[in-house]
Amino acid sequence: MKVKHIEITNNMTISDFMEQLDESGVLGAGRISHATKLLADSIKDEDTKIFLSLAGPMIPGGLRKVVRDLVDMGYVDLIISSGANLTHDLVESFGGRHYISTGEDDEVLQDNGMGRIADIYTKSEDFEVFEEEIHKIFAKINEKYDTISIQKFIYEIGLLVDDDNSFIATAAKNNVPIFAPGLIDCMIGLQLWIYCQDNDFTISAVGDMAYLSDFVYGCKKVTACMLGGGLPKHYALASNILTGGIDAGIQITLDRSEGGSLSGAPLEEAKSWAKAKKGSNLVTVVGDATVLFPLIVASALDKING
Amino acid sequence: MKVKHIEITNNMTISDFMEQLDESGVLGAGRISHATKLLADSIKDEDTKIFLSLAGPMIPGGLRKVVRDLVDMGYVDLIISSGANLTHDLVESFGGRHYISTGEDDEVLQDNGMGRIADIYTKSEDFEVFEEEIHKIFAKINEKYDTISIQKFIYEIGLLVDDDNSFIATAAKNNVPIFAPGLIDCMIGLQLWIYCQDNDFTISAVGDMAYLSDFVYGCKKVTACMLGGGLPKHYALASNILTGGIDAGIQITLDRSEGGSLSGAPLEEAKSWAKAKKGSNLVTVVGDATVLFPLIVASALDKING
Amino acid sequence: MKVKHIEITNNMTISDFMEQLDESGVLGAGRISHATKLLADSIKDEDTKIFLSLAGPMIPGGLRKVVRDLVDMGYVDLIISSGANLTHDLVESFGGRHYISTGEDDEVLQDNGMGRIADIYTKSEDFEVFEEEIHKIFAKINEKYDTISIQKFIYEIGLLVDDDNSFIATAAKNNVPIFAPGLIDCMIGLQLWIYCQDNDFTISAVGDMAYLSDFVYGCKKVTACMLGGGLPKHYALASNILTGGIDAGIQITLDRSEGGSLSGAPLEEAKSWAKAKKGSNLVTVVGDATVLFPLIVASALDKING
Amino acid sequence: MKVKHIEITNNMTISDFMEQLDESGVLGAGRISHATKLLADSIKDEDTKIFLSLAGPMIPGGLRKVVRDLVDMGYVDLIISSGANLTHDLVESFGGRHYISTGEDDEVLQDNGMGRIADIYTKSEDFEVFEEEIHKIFAKINEKYDTISIQKFIYEIGLLVDDDNSFIATAAKNNVPIFAPGLIDCMIGLQLWIYCQDNDFTISAVGDMAYLSDFVYGCKKVTACMLGGGLPKHYALASNILTGGIDAGIQITLDRSEGGSLSGAPLEEAKSWAKAKKGSNLVTVVGDATVLFPLIVASALDKING
Repeated sequence: MKVKHIEITNNMTISDFMEQLDESGVLGAGRISHATKLLADSIKDEDTKIFLSLAGPMIPGGLRKVVRDLVDMGYVDLIISSGANLTHDLVESFGGRHYISTGEDDEVLQDNGMGRIADIYTKSEDFEVFEEEIHKIFAKINEKYDTISIQKFIYEIGLLVDDDNSFIATAAKNNVPIFAPGLIDCMIGLQLWIYCQDNDFTISAVGDMAYLSDFVYGCKKVTACMLGGGLPKHYALASNILTGGIDAGIQITLDRSEGGSLSGAPLEEAKSWAKAKKGSNLVTVVGDATVLFPLIVASALDKING
Repeated sequence: MKVKHIEITNNMTISDFMEQLDESGVLGAGRISHATKLLADSIKDEDTKIFLSLAGPMIPGGLRKVVRDLVDMGYVDLIISSGANLTHDLVESFGGRHYISTGEDDEVLQDNGMGRIADIYTKSEDFEVFEEEIHKIFAKINEKYDTISIQKFIYEIGLLVDDDNSFIATAAKNNVPIFAPGLIDCMIGLQLWIYCQDNDFTISAVGDMAYLSDFVYGCKKVTACMLGGGLPKHYALASNILTGGIDAGIQITLDRSEGGSLSGAPLEEAKSWAKAKKGSNLVTVVGDATVLFPLIVASALDKING
Repeated sequence: MKVKHIEITNNMTISDFMEQLDESGVLGAGRISHATKLLADSIKDEDTKIFLSLAGPMIPGGLRKVVRDLVDMGYVDLIISSGANLTHDLVESFGGRHYISTGEDDEVLQDNGMGRIADIYTKSEDFEVFEEEIHKIFAKINEKYDTISIQKFIYEIGLLVDDDNSFIATAAKNNVPIFAPGLIDCMIGLQLWIYCQDNDFTISAVGDMAYLSDFVYGCKKVTACMLGGGLPKHYALASNILTGGIDAGIQITLDRSEGGSLSGAPLEEAKSWAKAKKGSNLVTVVGDATVLFPLIVASALDKING
Repeated sequence: MKVKHIEITNNMTISDFMEQLDESGVLGAGRISHATKLLADSIKDEDTKIFLSLAGPMIPGGLRKVVRDLVDMGYVDLIISSGANLTHDLVESFGGRHYISTGEDDEVLQDNGMGRIADIYTKSEDFEVFEEEIHKIFAKINEKYDTISIQKFIYEIGLLVDDDNSFIATAAKNNVPIFAPGLIDCMIGLQLWIYCQDNDFTISAVGDMAYLSDFVYGCKKVTACMLGGGLPKHYALASNILTGGIDAGIQITLDRSEGGSLSGAPLEEAKSWAKAKKGSNLVTVVGDATVLFPLIVASALDKING
């Protein structure tokens, strides 16, 4: 099949643009077009459940509403998140914000109480409000539970957060489970520790597995959409080992494969572990997920609604 | 300034999407939005000349029409190309095409006469036609010149290629000079050598400098738009050393900086060499130029025509 | 200071070689030399505790003995590991091995029961032995504990593993704590879940924090040595937030910074969060940790013993 | 074959260390060990000629003596260099040096006349001496030639440079040809242009091809050792297309493959173009060549002399 050269015209829509990428069909254009069709087809297919993993600064980096909306539209069935993305969702729910870098040196930022994520700034005053609010939530959950699994704990948080823009709250309302195997390693985890010093409250690290395995066994087909790598990517793949692996997978990452870390590993490698089925439909998009995922989602929505 | 989360809606236009990236303002979204505004402003500014450098498989990878159209609309004033991108433009002008990979092993491809560029295939039969045609063109140019500079040589080729889709032909018609300091290192160069064995014809490596320096001195302001790195990126920057450096620069690349190669170097480094002016407006977009440049161009066109 | 060109002679020692890198002083040579001196100085300084984080395939990729030996020599004071590196240590303790790739396709590997990590193979039969043995260990620990923290759990495993080559066992013998905040996301975690279905056994996700905070408060100075990124890198940095951040840090990674993920973030960023002290001595080495860490260790040992 | 874990002991030699990498056999260790054996075997094989390509800051970055020594020992038979590496060799021959960064901002460096290459600094006063000296050399060569090919031009420069540490001079003395297809795009090129404005002197871009093709046809076998990518890598591979491709190849680079640029392309791709023979022995080492190439050379020398 021939490469058709991309043609740019005035007032293009996202769908026009994606059609051009599709007809080009090579390099990034081919991969993005492949990922878009796979996402749209997976959403349209009633037998397919969509697992979304969030590693890297997806929420501070501008994808909070994209994730929330996908959940709200019923297009995501299960989320695996880093602890940090949960923390940053709640920071905004409690009135905080993320800020665009003005270029200060990191030592100056420390003095000014601003934490940096690449060119994103956070404010310690927003984290102070976060601390206050999250402890109130801990206390309310602790009234109901002495021991709780991570997923259920996040679900309970979601029910208690009164913020329609929160992806945690939206997931709770829509019964979309959120897993966070590394929850302890974030500000929520740190505050949990402080809370637990004076309260009888246990977060069970293993407690989610029964629910997760039931969920996975209940899926006819699974498409995993993995933003970034890390623990969330691994969990998204490994949770499907029980049923022979995912049926389809999309990953968007800037990590590379040669060092052997899972974050940069080609999805094909998952087949060897039966974390992806033989013949599964797998595509890796190389680039910044905070731009390419919205592009893919925008075009996939048009395909679904179109 | 606060990060506004990206909102995806149905039937978005490219301009809607770019507005979302702009309001997010961080990570790739911030960089792409910056590059788009800079490109649009540079095109609109009558005092600014735009230098476009092409390294990596821009023409085989689907950008032939984007480049050709920018030239035709008068939005590019000078091009620096790798030899390969010139060769691949002519391959198509002579009837050849580029093909989407079907996944064969490289040894099988060799047997089948197919050269591979990532997931792009070429056919040796297309190169055979290329060889035949390019020799006819060499002969015609050689009738007029014994010694010729590289830029003038490419210009003469452009005049002789009857293909409205060729960026070389379109550049010639529009008097947009194309420089290719590494011309000898491509199929055109190889055929030139074969041609020169039997003909008295010299390509002067230094011959372009007078024209180039006059061109640069004639520019009030220069914005360099660099797709990929390599010799074309260096030439785009270095040619402006005569006037104290570029006024603005955009580079789109997947290369990284730590090894010190120019291809991955931050544009800021060019300031130290006076290849970029102090205070110049510089932005690096990390990603695949064959996708991100069309996205930037699409949105910039809307800003210009909007 | 001038770059002195590297001179290679016959029968060089690692120390000779490192001296050449040191005198060159730029690019990778400068970074590796810096990391080596920092590691040696940190080991020699009685007031400094060394935190080692292990993400990516460090144990399957050939560093098992390097890590074990550093622990045994008393040169590492605290470890943060991915679950996978713990699993792969135990796989070898139970008689399994890691194998060098022979190039099969991932679907063939699945049929043959071989899991792939880049060019490293594992065998399902080794994992079967692992499962059997780890359940025996779980049962023994469960005899003593109903609820246990992750660090204590790994410590108890270490005491029960009779393998001098195991870094887990060696750490237990030497009272070097191992933390694994993402423990649940590996084969140990999967088997834990299976075990817990029939047994009353809870792994507390938050339970380590008291011990960890006591440990951190007990350190006069901390040098964090981070192989790969991920959760282990974050935990290594974040655990020091209580005391104003690490005093020195070395990271070795192939990840890059532009996407904003912590794995590729420059260590300087940690200063903004007070995870690294102002004025702390920080160095990032870009490359494959499975080669560069042994090189750094070899030279650091000579500096210490020299 | 099993992964044997790397063992680090006191006072290791480079050869001891490399033996450990070899027995590990996976990830970077496997690749570096493979490259070392291939380089040593290629040097020892009298029927094999070694082509060395130099892109990126190899000479400013500390490899000047390594390259010079390999040439002097007769271990390199042909060099393809970027113009910049030639320029930086001559800068040192004329008394200039390269300097280790002290961290200034690029705008300050411009004011201070210091050009930056990552963390390497150059001084404009060194370039002023360079300009003066190179013009004297041009004049001497111009006395003998009106038109000259690039390779012959560099050879003549080498004969006129009285510096035993210069790799250009050492190559000239040893009749090792140096090609530089992009010569015009460096400070030598800029000065050539200035020189040519007042003098009748033509550098033939195509003039090297006859000599190069004779050289290639005269090689029984070729091993290409490619440091960095760019034009020099392409030229190293493409020059062997005449004889069906290289027999073996080593590349050391931090560039990645997904964007399709040749710099990051896997060497296997060269097989499809018949730039590498079917069955050729090819290895890519991912990392910083200014560290890994000396490591490989040190070990290869021991294997040769051992």
